[in-house]
Amino acid sequence: MTDETRAPVTVIGLGLMGQALAAALLRAGHPTTVWNRTTAKADRLVSEGAHLAPTVGDALRASSLTIICVTDYQAMHELLGANDAELDGTTLINLTSGDSTQARKAAEWAKQRGAHYLDGAIMAIPPAIGTADAVILYSGPQQDFENHKSALDALGTATYLGADHGLASLYDVAGLAMMWSVLNAWLQGTALLGTAEIDAATYAPFAQQIAVGVAEWLPGYARQIDSGAFPAEVSALETDVRAMGHLIEESEAVGVNAELPKLIKAMADRAIAAGHGGEQYPVLIEEFGRRSED
Amino acid sequence: MTDETRAPVTVIGLGLMGQALAAALLRAGHPTTVWNRTTAKADRLVSEGAHLAPTVGDALRASSLTIICVTDYQAMHELLGANDAELDGTTLINLTSGDSTQARKAAEWAKQRGAHYLDGAIMAIPPAIGTADAVILYSGPQQDFENHKSALDALGTATYLGADHGLASLYDVAGLAMMWSVLNAWLQGTALLGTAEIDAATYAPFAQQIAVGVAEWLPGYARQIDSGAFPAEVSALETDVRAMGHLIEESEAVGVNAELPKLIKAMADRAIAAGHGGEQYPVLIEEFGRRSED
Repeated sequence: MTDETRAPVTVIGLGLMGQALAAALLRAGHPTTVWNRTTAKADRLVSEGAHLAPTVGDALRASSLTIICVTDYQAMHELLGANDAELDGTTLINLTSGDSTQARKAAEWAKQRGAHYLDGAIMAIPPAIGTADAVILYSGPQQDFENHKSALDALGTATYLGADHGLASLYDVAGLAMMWSVLNAWLQGTALLGTAEIDAATYAPFAQQIAVGVAEWLPGYARQIDSGAFPAEVSALETDVRAMGHLIEESEAVGVNAELPKLIKAMADRAIAAGHGGEQYPVLIEEFGRRSED
Repeated sequence: MTDETRAPVTVIGLGLMGQALAAALLRAGHPTTVWNRTTAKADRLVSEGAHLAPTVGDALRASSLTIICVTDYQAMHELLGANDAELDGTTLINLTSGDSTQARKAAEWAKQRGAHYLDGAIMAIPPAIGTADAVILYSGPQQDFENHKSALDALGTATYLGADHGLASLYDVAGLAMMWSVLNAWLQGTALLGTAEIDAATYAPFAQQIAVGVAEWLPGYARQIDSGAFPAEVSALETDVRAMGHLIEESEAVGVNAELPKLIKAMADRAIAAGHGGEQYPVLIEEFGRRSED
C-alpha cells in the first residue's frame, strides 16, 4: 500500500489513537514507521506494512515528520529526551492531550532542540480517524503546517488555527465546553418534558432546532464583544433573568435538578449587580472572563 | 384593513407583547377588539382599526376567541373573575408567562366556566410578532387549536405540542435552558480564546459549528434514553471526565471562570459514583431528573 510519492511518517505512541493514526497513514500510502514502549501493540500495524523501529532514535531518523501521541506531555518529554533522540531539523507534531501552557513550553523546548513543532488536538474518537469526520486542530508556524498538509489530510479534517502553539488546546476545550453544554441543556429539557410523559425522542428535534437557531446568533453577538458595546437590541439582561427565574421555579416544581438553571441565573445576576441589567446577554463575557472566586 | 371572512378576535392585555399581538391580527384582517386597564395603551391600535371595549365583559362578548397576555396568572384570574365576564362557550388562549402547574390549574378553572382553553408560550420578542420568526407554542385540546389556527397563524409560527396544558410552559423553559447554555458555552470559549488574543468574531464560527454538530446527535442519544440502555458506542463517561478535568485546569490556568466547567464535571462525577462510568453521556439523564439537594 505504500507509495513512493508519499512522504515517510513516523508515529510514536500506539495507544488506540496512535494505532488509528498510523493505520490511516498506511492506508493513504505513506511509508510509516512506528514505535511503542510495548512492541506488541505494533503487531497489527506491522502486518499492514508498518516498519517497527527498535528505538525512539531510530523512529525519529526514519522520517522527517514524526507524529507523537502519548499519555501526557511528561511522557513525551521522557521519550524524546532519550540519548539517541536527534530532533534537529525534524518536524514534530504533538497530538498528546494537554493544556495551552504545556503546548507553549513544548514548543520552546522543541525550538531549542532545533525541531519544527506543531501542537495539535484531536476532536474525534479513534474509529473516525482517517475520515473527514475526524477534525484535528493544529497550531504553530503556518509553514510547518503547509509543508506536511498532505500527510495531515490523511488523518482527518486538518484545521489550522494560528501561530500560537496554545491555540489547539484552547479551541479543543472550548469546543468540549460547547458539546457538554448542549448535551446538558438537552438533558435538562428532556427531564422537564419527561415529567409530562413526553419521551426523549419527541423532545429531541425541538432541542436541536433551538440549539441550531441560537448558534446562528453567535457571529452577531461576537461583534458586540469585539466592539465592547452591548445595546439591548433583542432583550435586556434584566428581562432575561425573570425568565431564568421561571426556569428555576418550573424545574423545582416538577422535581427536576435545578443546578444548571441556578448557575445560569447566578451569572446573569452578577452582571446585573455590576450594572449591566439594561444591556444584552453577551455583556456576560465579563463574568466568564473573570477567575471564579472559590 | 378588516376583512369579513376573518374571524373576530379579542386581545386582553396591551403591554408591549399584547399590543404586538393585536397589531398583527389587525394587519391580517381580523376584526380586533382590545381591552386594557390603562386605556391609553389602546390609542395606537384604535387608530389602526381596533375596537376598544369599555369592560372586560364587553371585550369577551365581542369575539368567540379571546387571547389574553397579562403580567401573570393571578392578573388573568382577577380580570376574568369580574362580574360580567361570561366565559361559557368562548375560547380563551392564554399567552401569559407562567409555569406548567399554573397552566393546568387555569385549564381546570376555564373548563368549570364552560370555556375552551389553550395555554401558550411566546418564544419571541414583540417586534417579531406577526412574522414566521415568532415561534408560539400551544398546548390543550387539538380541536381547539385547529379551530383557531388561521388567527394563530397571523401571530407567528403556531406550534401545537399536545393535549396536556402544561406542555407549552415546559417546552418554553426547556428551550430557554438550551438558549442560555449555548450562549454560556460560547462565552466560556470566547473567554478562553480571548486569553490568546483571539477575538470573538474569529472564534464564533467554530463554536457555531460545534453546537450544530452536537445538536445532530440528540435524536440518536434520545433513543438511548427512551430505551433505558446507554452502551458506550462513542465514548464512556469515565473517559469524558478526564477531558472535563482538562477543561477546568485550562480555564483556571489562564484565569477564566471555571464554574460552568466544574458543574459539568460534578454532574458526570455523580453519575460515575452511581456506577455509570462505563456508559455513555445520556445516562446523565438520571442526574438531571433528580431534584437538586440543596
